Amino acid sequence: MSSKPHPVSETSPSHTRLGPGREFDRIRRIVAELGNRAVGLGDDCAVLAAEGDQVCLSTDVSVEGVHFRREWLTLEEIGWRSAAAALSDLAAAAALPIGLLAALVIPEDLDPEAAEQLMVGVGGAAAMSGASVLGGDLSSGGLLSLTITVVGRTEHHLGRSGARVGDRLWVSGTLGGARSALEQWRTGEGTDPDHDARHAFAKPEPRIAEGRWLAHRGAHALIDLSDGLAGDVRHLAAASGVGCVVNLDALPLHISTGAGATLTGQAAAVFAAIGGEDYELLAAMPESFTPEAREFAVDFGTPLTNIGVVLDGPVQFLLDGEDVDLQGYSHFQ
Amino acid sequence: MSSKPHPVSETSPSHTRLGPGREFDRIRRIVAELGNRAVGLGDDCAVLAAEGDQVCLSTDVSVEGVHFRREWLTLEEIGWRSAAAALSDLAAAAALPIGLLAALVIPEDLDPEAAEQLMVGVGGAAAMSGASVLGGDLSSGGLLSLTITVVGRTEHHLGRSGARVGDRLWVSGTLGGARSALEQWRTGEGTDPDHDARHAFAKPEPRIAEGRWLAHRGAHALIDLSDGLAGDVRHLAAASGVGCVVNLDALPLHISTGAGATLTGQAAAVFAAIGGEDYELLAAMPESFTPEAREFAVDFGTPLTNIGVVLDGPVQFLLDGEDVDLQGYSHFQ
Repeated sequence: MSSKPHPVSETSPSHTRLGPGREFDRIRRIVAELGNRAVGLGDDCAVLAAEGDQVCLSTDVSVEGVHFRREWLTLEEIGWRSAAAALSDLAAAAALPIGLLAALVIPEDLDPEAAEQLMVGVGGAAAMSGASVLGGDLSSGGLLSLTITVVGRTEHHLGRSGARVGDRLWVSGTLGGARSALEQWRTGEGTDPDHDARHAFAKPEPRIAEGRWLAHRGAHALIDLSDGLAGDVRHLAAASGVGCVVNLDALPLHISTGAGATLTGQAAAVFAAIGGEDYELLAAMPESFTPEAREFAVDFGTPLTNIGVVLDGPVQFLLDGEDVDLQGYSHFQ
Repeated sequence: MSSKPHPVSETSPSHTRLGPGREFDRIRRIVAELGNRAVGLGDDCAVLAAEGDQVCLSTDVSVEGVHFRREWLTLEEIGWRSAAAALSDLAAAAALPIGLLAALVIPEDLDPEAAEQLMVGVGGAAAMSGASVLGGDLSSGGLLSLTITVVGRTEHHLGRSGARVGDRLWVSGTLGGARSALEQWRTGEGTDPDHDARHAFAKPEPRIAEGRWLAHRGAHALIDLSDGLAGDVRHLAAASGVGCVVNLDALPLHISTGAGATLTGQAAAVFAAIGGEDYELLAAMPESFTPEAREFAVDFGTPLTNIGVVLDGPVQFLLDGEDVDLQGYSHFQ
């Protein structure tokens, strides 16, 4: 193997296995169209082998009207959130962030300081993750959008494809907060969501240290919860060629999840499981891992919760012991 | 120095020196705002040191209504052009492309195959440059845009900051073709530009091999012509702390430049010098380089032309021996 950086192409086949959904159908068609011009699409990060280390790359776009609305967030929060979403992909690769590049499209009607305000947020999320701002691009354009590309390094790549039958599924933090904010904005007619929900949506914290912690304790697979637990469990299962049973009654719920669930009439656990953009980590850990979970809560001030098991079979979600049909959150719904 | 990949921060100071322009004022303000959270902004590529090699990164956004119009180009051409623009930044770093990541924002009114068609173009430009498609992101959104992030490697980084007094300025290929297409579209009321102009705009070819050729022959500085020669000469001069005299009468003109210049009433050389998006290379070469320039034309089928000299003084553009005041092309004009 050459010592020059090069794509890790031998991991390609398993990485194009995604769960169901229209967005993922598009990705499957793109992969088929590109053939051998594409390498390793479908995981949270692209990986380049470099001597003694691997370089991880991921890109993430946030568009107004789809991922946020300008009237909901400050420009600094929009920048933070966009960068955190991208950095979360490094967390899911158990990678240490090096830096990021930020491509901003800024409408003419925003004030001249908009780019700086966005970049204060981008830089803040980068700094809390140990990343530098390495570069970027600026353009005018009709809609505000940010594309953040992150680069990190890891000793060995951990992706979503390594889950094994018998593993336990663990999730960091709490779920449903970001979606609760969205539902409160949508139904609140101009009023802000409760503080905790708004914070969950506006200032997610990429689980960088948590991802490394899980990797060092033997995680077989890792994915970040951007599409929502229901969808991301399916991605992990599809990539690993396994099934899962998730016990929805065990989900750790965000303090604001109840408020959001009430607005939709869904059970809180169902509301949380199909809510996107929590940016928590889902890990497939060996069965022997359990006793260390309390240490996680002490180290990081947030729980690590066993929510299911990896099996040889389909993906199932149980609520009160009953099978529930959940569809993952999709931007193309 | 650690063997782990890390930002090459010691090059930072010179790299935030940019030429005049509103877009560059914004970048200067961003750099000031970020302070030590930013590393090496302002060059064509970010550079990470890795053992024995350097990893180069750059990101480039293309937005409909700003960089292209959907009625002008096929989706495949839009994809090609966006990727070529980003890969051109690797050419300017004399880097070998490894791969790219593509973040696509696709309006709902485009047909379901739009993503594949765009990616056929992206993949085509990548393949001709020796790059793989490593990853990406897909979103819906009100306007079509593509953000392409490229990654490459080089033995030693070549940027825009190394020009020395006494160097000669050389430019690859011919100039003004892309702008001629733009002017023909703008004034042609629905008719296509002439074939050569359209091709220059729709299918630029990143000068990867040409950049390596120039670097191996001792180039002191290199930049790609994305903002237009007039603006990019100023960037190179500002980054290097030198002045330049450019002889506009010597500019190598694209076969369609005359047609475009006629529409604007400008002298052809002035039209070409302020036209953006030719994606040719501008190099500061040692004075001794001259005899090898013919070899370039033989190797690459396009000229390499001496258009000026690096001096200790201001940046000047001469036409018929007279000083001409040129402003660089800017997306924020």
